[in-house]
Amino acid sequence: MKERILTGDRITGKLNFGHYVGSLKNRVELQTQYETYLLLADVQALTTHFEQPDLIQENLRQVALDYLSAGIDPDQATIFIQSLIPEIAELTIYFSMFVTVNSLRHNPTIKAEATERGYQEMYYGFLGYPVSQAADITFCKATLVPVGEDQVPHIEQTRKIVRRFNQLYKPVLVEPKPLVGDVPRLVGLDGNHKMSKSLGNAIYLDSTPEEVREKIKKATTDPARIHKTDIGHPEICPVYAYHQVFRKEGSDEIYESCKKGQIGCVECKRSISQSINDLLEPMRERRSLYKNDPKKVDEMLMSGTAKARQVAKETMQEIREAMSMNYF
Amino acid sequence: MKERILTGDRITGKLNFGHYVGSLKNRVELQTQYETYLLLADVQALTTHFEQPDLIQENLRQVALDYLSAGIDPDQATIFIQSLIPEIAELTIYFSMFVTVNSLRHNPTIKAEATERGYQEMYYGFLGYPVSQAADITFCKATLVPVGEDQVPHIEQTRKIVRRFNQLYKPVLVEPKPLVGDVPRLVGLDGNHKMSKSLGNAIYLDSTPEEVREKIKKATTDPARIHKTDIGHPEICPVYAYHQVFRKEGSDEIYESCKKGQIGCVECKRSISQSINDLLEPMRERRSLYKNDPKKVDEMLMSGTAKARQVAKETMQEIREAMSMNYF
Repeated sequence: MKERILTGDRITGKLNFGHYVGSLKNRVELQTQYETYLLLADVQALTTHFEQPDLIQENLRQVALDYLSAGIDPDQATIFIQSLIPEIAELTIYFSMFVTVNSLRHNPTIKAEATERGYQEMYYGFLGYPVSQAADITFCKATLVPVGEDQVPHIEQTRKIVRRFNQLYKPVLVEPKPLVGDVPRLVGLDGNHKMSKSLGNAIYLDSTPEEVREKIKKATTDPARIHKTDIGHPEICPVYAYHQVFRKEGSDEIYESCKKGQIGCVECKRSISQSINDLLEPMRERRSLYKNDPKKVDEMLMSGTAKARQVAKETMQEIREAMSMNYF
Repeated sequence: MKERILTGDRITGKLNFGHYVGSLKNRVELQTQYETYLLLADVQALTTHFEQPDLIQENLRQVALDYLSAGIDPDQATIFIQSLIPEIAELTIYFSMFVTVNSLRHNPTIKAEATERGYQEMYYGFLGYPVSQAADITFCKATLVPVGEDQVPHIEQTRKIVRRFNQLYKPVLVEPKPLVGDVPRLVGLDGNHKMSKSLGNAIYLDSTPEEVREKIKKATTDPARIHKTDIGHPEICPVYAYHQVFRKEGSDEIYESCKKGQIGCVECKRSISQSINDLLEPMRERRSLYKNDPKKVDEMLMSGTAKARQVAKETMQEIREAMSMNYF
C-alpha cells in the first residue's frame, strides 16, 4: 500500500514559476509513488487575507488549473477544498484544548510574525495556524508531508499534537514524518530572492508565449553590462539563474559566453524565453483542455472533496469514539 | 414571532440547586415567552476538562434529565449537543481570523485565568472561548442571551464580533442583547458562597428525599448556637439562606424564632428539608418518567440537535455566501 502525503497551498493568488520550481514540480513526481492529498487551503488563506474574501474565490479554480496544467493527475491525486471539510475545523478545536499559547510561540512562522507585531496584536486565528495545520495533516492520516529542511519544525509541532492526543485518549492518529526534499527558490524578474505577486516580479503558469518573452525582456540583468562585449557577471543575473533551472545542459555554456562577453543579453534572454515556453507548452495544452471544460474542473474538485470528506468522516468517528463523545 | 434566546451549560457534572436557583428556574419561565435554544456544551467543557472526557459522556444525559425534570419542555425548548453542530466549530474558526489575542484579554473570564496562570501558560482553546461563545450565540441567530449583570461584558464581545463580521462581509449575523436578570447565588451546605461538586457542598436535583434530609442535617449552621435557647444569627446561617430562597413566606418567622432562641436547628432543618423535598417532588416524577424511557431522552436529544443543525446549516450557507465561499 502506498504511503499517503498531504500537501497544498494557501489560496492567495494564482501560482507562479517559483511555486512550480519549489513544490509543484516535485508533487507531480510524488503523485505516482504516494497517495497524494492536495489541499486548496482557502480557510488558512483567511489568516492573512480575511479582508479579501473575493481574492480567494477568484483564485481557487485558478490554482486548481495550475495544478492540472502542471501535470497533477486527478485520477492519482485527490485535490480538495479545505472549507468543505468541516471536520478540519472540528479537529482544530479539539487540538486547541491541549496546546498552550506558549508552545505556539515556538513555531517559526509565528515567531517571525511576533517579532514584527508582538503576540497581543496578532490575530487569534493566525496564532493558531500550527494547530489547524495539524488538523490538515491528521484528518487524512497522512504519514508524510513534503517540506524543505527549514519547515521540519512545523511538522514537529503536528507530531507533538498527535502524540499528546494519542496519549490523552486513544492512539487513533498517525504521527506524520517530514519528507524532506530540496525546495529550490526561484529568483524574481527584478533579482529579488523570491517571485511574488506583491513584488510584481513573477512569471505565471498561465502566461502566453508573448507574455513570457515580454517579461523576460524586461528582466533585470547584470547592471555593469552595457555592451555585448562587456564582461558579464552571470552569478548575480536572474536570467542566468533561470538558465540554471530551466536549461540545465546549456547553462555552463551561457555562463562562459557571458563571462567572456561573447553573448548579448538579448540573445541570452531569447534562448531562456524559448526554454520556458517549451516547458509551458504542454501545460498550456492541458490548461486549455480544462479551461474549456469548467464543468469538468468543478466535478474534479467536487469528487476530490467528497473523497477527502469521506476520509474525514471516518477519522472523526474514531476521534469521537476515542474522546468518549460517541453518544448515540 | 417570538424572540430567540440561547443559553446552556458546560457539561462538567450534573446540576445542583445552585444551578437551579441561578438559571434553570428562570429558563423554565422564559421558555414560554421565548424560542429557547438550550446548549449542552460538551466541547466547551473540554477547555477545562480535556483530560476527563468520560466525565462529559457520563454527565451529558444527566444534565438533560436535570433540564427535563426541572420543567424544561422539549416541545417548547430545543435542547441540543454542541459537538454535533460542526458549524459552531467552523464559525469559531472564521471569527478567529479577525479577533486579536489582545481583545480576548479583555474578557473577564480570560482576565481572571490570566492573573492566575499568565497568558502563555494558558491553553489556546481556553483563550479562545469568547470566540466560540460568539459562535454558539450567532449560529442560531439568538437575539437574547439571559445573563447576570456581571456577564454583560461576555455578550459585548460577541456583539463586537458580529459587528465586525457584518462590516467585513455582509450583514447576515444578528447582534444579540443580554437579557439581564437576577442570577441569585445559592450558598453551599458548608457556608461557602457557591454550591459546587468540587467543594462537596451541593444538593443535587436528582437527590432522594432521604439524601436531602441527610445533607441538610449535616449542613453548617450558626457555630455560636449550642442549645435551642441560644440566640441565633440567621444572617450567617446557610440553612436560613435556604429558607429565604425555598420557603419565602415562612422565612421571616424563622428569622425571628432563631433570633429569639425559640426554634432549634433540628426543627429548622426539618422544615427546610420538607420544603426542598416538596419542590423536588414533581421534578422526581418527571425524572423518573424520562429515566425509565432512555430512548425517549435520546430521541429528544437527537431531534433537538437535528433542529439546531438545520438552523446551523442555513446560517452557514449565508456565511459562505457573505464570505464569497459558495464555490459551486
